[in-house]
Amino acid sequence: MSSPADLDTFTIELPSWAFGNAGTRFKVFATPGVPRDPYEKISDAAQVHRYTGLAPRVSLHIPWDLVDDYDALARHAADEGVSIGAINSNLFQDDDYRLGSLANPSKAVRDKAIAHHAACVDVMRATGSTDLKLWLPDGTNYPGQDSIRARQDRLADSLQQVYALLDPGHRLLIEYKLFEPSFYTMDIPDWGTALTHCLALGDQANVVLDTGHHAPSTNIEFIVAMLLRAGRLGAFDFNSRFYADDDLMVGAADPFQLFRILNEIVEQDAHLPASGVNFMLDQCHNIEPKIQGQIRSVLNVEEALAKALLVDRAALTAAQQEGDVLGAHAVVMDAYNTDVRRSLADRREDKGLERDPVAAFRASGYLDRVSAERVGGLQASWGA
Amino acid sequence: MSSPADLDTFTIELPSWAFGNAGTRFKVFATPGVPRDPYEKISDAAQVHRYTGLAPRVSLHIPWDLVDDYDALARHAADEGVSIGAINSNLFQDDDYRLGSLANPSKAVRDKAIAHHAACVDVMRATGSTDLKLWLPDGTNYPGQDSIRARQDRLADSLQQVYALLDPGHRLLIEYKLFEPSFYTMDIPDWGTALTHCLALGDQANVVLDTGHHAPSTNIEFIVAMLLRAGRLGAFDFNSRFYADDDLMVGAADPFQLFRILNEIVEQDAHLPASGVNFMLDQCHNIEPKIQGQIRSVLNVEEALAKALLVDRAALTAAQQEGDVLGAHAVVMDAYNTDVRRSLADRREDKGLERDPVAAFRASGYLDRVSAERVGGLQASWGA
Amino acid sequence: MSSPADLDTFTIELPSWAFGNAGTRFKVFATPGVPRDPYEKISDAAQVHRYTGLAPRVSLHIPWDLVDDYDALARHAADEGVSIGAINSNLFQDDDYRLGSLANPSKAVRDKAIAHHAACVDVMRATGSTDLKLWLPDGTNYPGQDSIRARQDRLADSLQQVYALLDPGHRLLIEYKLFEPSFYTMDIPDWGTALTHCLALGDQANVVLDTGHHAPSTNIEFIVAMLLRAGRLGAFDFNSRFYADDDLMVGAADPFQLFRILNEIVEQDAHLPASGVNFMLDQCHNIEPKIQGQIRSVLNVEEALAKALLVDRAALTAAQQEGDVLGAHAVVMDAYNTDVRRSLADRREDKGLERDPVAAFRASGYLDRVSAERVGGLQASWGA
Amino acid sequence: MSSPADLDTFTIELPSWAFGNAGTRFKVFATPGVPRDPYEKISDAAQVHRYTGLAPRVSLHIPWDLVDDYDALARHAADEGVSIGAINSNLFQDDDYRLGSLANPSKAVRDKAIAHHAACVDVMRATGSTDLKLWLPDGTNYPGQDSIRARQDRLADSLQQVYALLDPGHRLLIEYKLFEPSFYTMDIPDWGTALTHCLALGDQANVVLDTGHHAPSTNIEFIVAMLLRAGRLGAFDFNSRFYADDDLMVGAADPFQLFRILNEIVEQDAHLPASGVNFMLDQCHNIEPKIQGQIRSVLNVEEALAKALLVDRAALTAAQQEGDVLGAHAVVMDAYNTDVRRSLADRREDKGLERDPVAAFRASGYLDRVSAERVGGLQASWGA
Repeated sequence: MSSPADLDTFTIELPSWAFGNAGTRFKVFATPGVPRDPYEKISDAAQVHRYTGLAPRVSLHIPWDLVDDYDALARHAADEGVSIGAINSNLFQDDDYRLGSLANPSKAVRDKAIAHHAACVDVMRATGSTDLKLWLPDGTNYPGQDSIRARQDRLADSLQQVYALLDPGHRLLIEYKLFEPSFYTMDIPDWGTALTHCLALGDQANVVLDTGHHAPSTNIEFIVAMLLRAGRLGAFDFNSRFYADDDLMVGAADPFQLFRILNEIVEQDAHLPASGVNFMLDQCHNIEPKIQGQIRSVLNVEEALAKALLVDRAALTAAQQEGDVLGAHAVVMDAYNTDVRRSLADRREDKGLERDPVAAFRASGYLDRVSAERVGGLQASWGA
Repeated sequence: MSSPADLDTFTIELPSWAFGNAGTRFKVFATPGVPRDPYEKISDAAQVHRYTGLAPRVSLHIPWDLVDDYDALARHAADEGVSIGAINSNLFQDDDYRLGSLANPSKAVRDKAIAHHAACVDVMRATGSTDLKLWLPDGTNYPGQDSIRARQDRLADSLQQVYALLDPGHRLLIEYKLFEPSFYTMDIPDWGTALTHCLALGDQANVVLDTGHHAPSTNIEFIVAMLLRAGRLGAFDFNSRFYADDDLMVGAADPFQLFRILNEIVEQDAHLPASGVNFMLDQCHNIEPKIQGQIRSVLNVEEALAKALLVDRAALTAAQQEGDVLGAHAVVMDAYNTDVRRSLADRREDKGLERDPVAAFRASGYLDRVSAERVGGLQASWGA
Repeated sequence: MSSPADLDTFTIELPSWAFGNAGTRFKVFATPGVPRDPYEKISDAAQVHRYTGLAPRVSLHIPWDLVDDYDALARHAADEGVSIGAINSNLFQDDDYRLGSLANPSKAVRDKAIAHHAACVDVMRATGSTDLKLWLPDGTNYPGQDSIRARQDRLADSLQQVYALLDPGHRLLIEYKLFEPSFYTMDIPDWGTALTHCLALGDQANVVLDTGHHAPSTNIEFIVAMLLRAGRLGAFDFNSRFYADDDLMVGAADPFQLFRILNEIVEQDAHLPASGVNFMLDQCHNIEPKIQGQIRSVLNVEEALAKALLVDRAALTAAQQEGDVLGAHAVVMDAYNTDVRRSLADRREDKGLERDPVAAFRASGYLDRVSAERVGGLQASWGA
Repeated sequence: MSSPADLDTFTIELPSWAFGNAGTRFKVFATPGVPRDPYEKISDAAQVHRYTGLAPRVSLHIPWDLVDDYDALARHAADEGVSIGAINSNLFQDDDYRLGSLANPSKAVRDKAIAHHAACVDVMRATGSTDLKLWLPDGTNYPGQDSIRARQDRLADSLQQVYALLDPGHRLLIEYKLFEPSFYTMDIPDWGTALTHCLALGDQANVVLDTGHHAPSTNIEFIVAMLLRAGRLGAFDFNSRFYADDDLMVGAADPFQLFRILNEIVEQDAHLPASGVNFMLDQCHNIEPKIQGQIRSVLNVEEALAKALLVDRAALTAAQQEGDVLGAHAVVMDAYNTDVRRSLADRREDKGLERDPVAAFRASGYLDRVSAERVGGLQASWGA
């Protein structure tokens, strides 16, 4: 049985790239104080954990977070109170990938993309990370540009080779996305495709669900339920959207949807560490301050989980079995409508944290300090 | 290698219900001459085959097409020059199904829905039909109304029992749909869910792709490619849409999409009878004449297939492998932009059919005749 | 300045048809105790007002709610503690309307549709209603079926004639809808079209915003802001949706959206009676109990308004003017995340109402009583 | 009456920026031979006109196409056989515009954005351009971030000041867009908003319809009809999309939609120069060759127009007035299904142009030549 105490073991993983500059194809706005290297990104991420107590891990993105000495980076993380999480490969920023990476018509390009994952697995070994996260940006822009079927066959072959690189304790996490950067087909556009590939690969392959990567009107909690039932939900990339892959702060666009997702998670006990589900953020802070945006996002997930843990499961099941449509709905809404912020502040206080993480961070002067210190160099961005 | 001669073996199956009245929740408009029983529906369907030479089979829907003597019905069909195709079950028109059928919380209701399929299999044995088509309208309207996971578990159990009813030569064809009549969850909303259940059931279970049952922006030909690759594309329900499940005439809303779908079919040789793919129509003719609407639809599919068969596969593959984006696209567009109507009329003439099926049907006086004859009785409609 | 006391003057209008049976094109499920005539519908509607204190008016739909003696109906309403609100015309349930009503190619059909509005205005005079609500279901299903432009010209002419029927104190409320029952074009698909016609008609013409009548991803509160700015927001038809015009209970699918809409309303003081905005429900209770569903919906709107009234407008404006993106957002979210249910229960208690309207209604035995009484006759439904 | 001869006066305007590099937020792929300055862009654009005979004008984008001497630029254009068309302002690439430009909370920023239009009007005077095209990227990412209403009021005021800058023969063309770069609200998201502002400004203000800027399922030809009826359709930005603002080649995603749009244009005689509608392309060639992509796009528009001119208007009107749904639809489809490519090639030959513009351009060696010549310097891109 789930209980509010389950909050104690729940954690959220932060993306290093959320602390760099981000934007749209039209403009990336620069922001004072933005990190210039992986060390500074980890320091910023650690601020989020310091004030929320919920975000003890940081995902890296290769090559953006390549360093010479991963022991040093891991020590820096430990000094800051966090550790290194999943390793994300990058298949979209090389000129060779114009027509795809793992599904490219050219064997040479596919081999290069596979070799990149070998490098990522090396970073996993160096950092102790166990999750290799693969988002495939491959696809086509025009009907006929390439064979959908041939791309799948090539992709399956490439994935097999990537999978073969894994150590026993490693997982391959495969992420799907409906569109962008390709605008006619994506080679892994939906959970059905991602699951098909995972089933062909083996038990170490799991699906990543990014909450912004679906067609309009898609019921995401249904997919959560299906992937948990199949034993293949490896991770979330949390964010929120009104239109496409907007990458806004999770919980900002549709907090009720976030609650429903976490309600599904709790119903199947997937919020507990034993489930193996890695709850990660993947967001862009185009116009808002980044560290504060990450704190807000972590709190939004925590509040949604706290509400989901309030659902009276026995009453819910009873109403469902009686066919009491409005009664069952009301049980869920009762939890959603509850204001959990005070009790979560109490929990923080009990743990020696500030009651109001956002206010505490703003008052800390951290942003002013790093804005003053981080002068010169190149601000981290999606391209660096 | 595909060739224009492949048109000789390609057939389309017609739905008996397309000849009855249909409409929206707001209004079903009555139409003179509409059939009042399965015999008259088959007679109307036979008109479509008479003028197109492409539609030799008629799907039945149980209980709408229940008759006392299926031998007599089959003989009537044979007399009219057609035969009986797939048997469709009905899980949405009984008051017991308010909260679902195969996934209903009540075991008694689930048992009733399973028993209905036993009756359908009896019809299959009586008619020689080999395809049992199952569209599951089950789902929920409100968050919390029922457990998504529990519904899947019950559904899986029910499907197992339905599957066990099949004879060796039978197939179970499972159709997915994003929404309607349920508006929060559907229990089989997408191809991933349908495929998951088919894989659990066994080789005789296949997926039905209804072209109107997807979220906006879904790339349908991609799903066709995936299901063919998995060996699980059992059938199409063709129709077209601008918004939701509009059930307009296939090819009316986006003829280029229809062509792309058939291009994918041809690329994987699935237009040949050996593929086992059953190309069925499933449409509503709310405001237009029904027989003429079916003729138009059959011709639209034929034209799309004829264009797909014109694609220069060798040139296409060469351009794709060279990464010539616009060259490969142009090969496909060149086929699409070709006007195939004259050559298809020539084919009809060669086979002793009228060159212009619509004009010939209109000139035949059939509709006036049956409008005069079919007086009294209750016109067939979705509810009868 | 808005204040929580504004709740005292806020009212919601109920649709008489919500108390009859409703469904999809696939099935209308019957429900025990459903009203069989306008008197019984008003009695049911009055239950909603009895327990919420918020819903003192009932919209009628002509011809569904035609009676011989409107004085008697009005007295019945008064006896039950409610009054008669807007009069809705019906342009979709006559066989003559197969190709449209006010925009039909046939002048005879258009004249019939115009004459129907004259009858509606008569009902308005008999009942004292001031709002004539017109939802135009007209449109086309196939490209080329009719001229988009010619339909607009005919529509403009017909609307002019309808407008000319109004008395000085009357309003014509024009509702737009993206699709259904037409699936290629609707003749009034969006707010731009509705506003264009209202501007051409005159000051007594206003737009109705139905929250379920938009394309996916449409920002509804933006439209609210635009229509208020133009002085042309006449009324809401509240309901909620996940996919299309699902007509679920308002606030059930996206409570945050409902809050944002009411926040926009409050920002422009449109929640006050002086604004002239008529806040109406328009919903279907396909599978859930209808009176209870209406109570839940009224409470959902009240809770959203109560939260909107909590927004600290001064702090919000200050943060907006400083460009403090997250600060301004937080002001709004702080109101949304507040649990207002206890304070609203206190308000009800102060007014002599039960604290928990749903529980009180369920305990009242009303539904059992009318289910026993309402035997025989034909249950009200969309078609009656 | 429209006739095929109308093709003689129809022209398409090309965007200078289509010849530079473009991409997604993930990656801009570099391409050999891409122009490095406005002169080279115009030379490339002139290639499109040389082979199609349809594209005699080039839109400029300020500041991307700022030069010291516009007389020299105009002479260069004339030497290349083209002229300078609309002047596009840029409101998205300055750090000051993080929270908007013409609707920014800060008066200083708004004034800067207004002043930028004064500079654009100067370019118009220098080049003889008559169209000032304004796409407003302003909006917000988070609920509450700013007041929707206040932004509209500020925007209206700013637009008034921009409008006041115009000379008598000038037009202000205002473009709307559903989302991107803002993800919660756009300040001009739809045609209703654009039209509202145009009506307030005066007769010189018109709406620009970009075919990729709508919500899913939007019927674009309906909007065309409405804007023509209002006398306010100023221009098109043609491109195509499967998902969002994909900016693919026009006609590549849904050629039938392009035909329907041009059919609406022809029905209202808006393809004739007297209509004042400026038919412009606005596309990105992320992965395909740019000049060839523009040629393909121009030909796609020409083919769609040629088909629209084939529609038998008398037969169509007759069928529409008889209520012959399928007959009227067939008239339109008959034109669409006609292969016009040979007759268009004949027309080109008659005019002294090559029959196959794409093949002729590829054979010309132009791309190889400029790729060899354009070495060094910075390739034009969205940011330069």
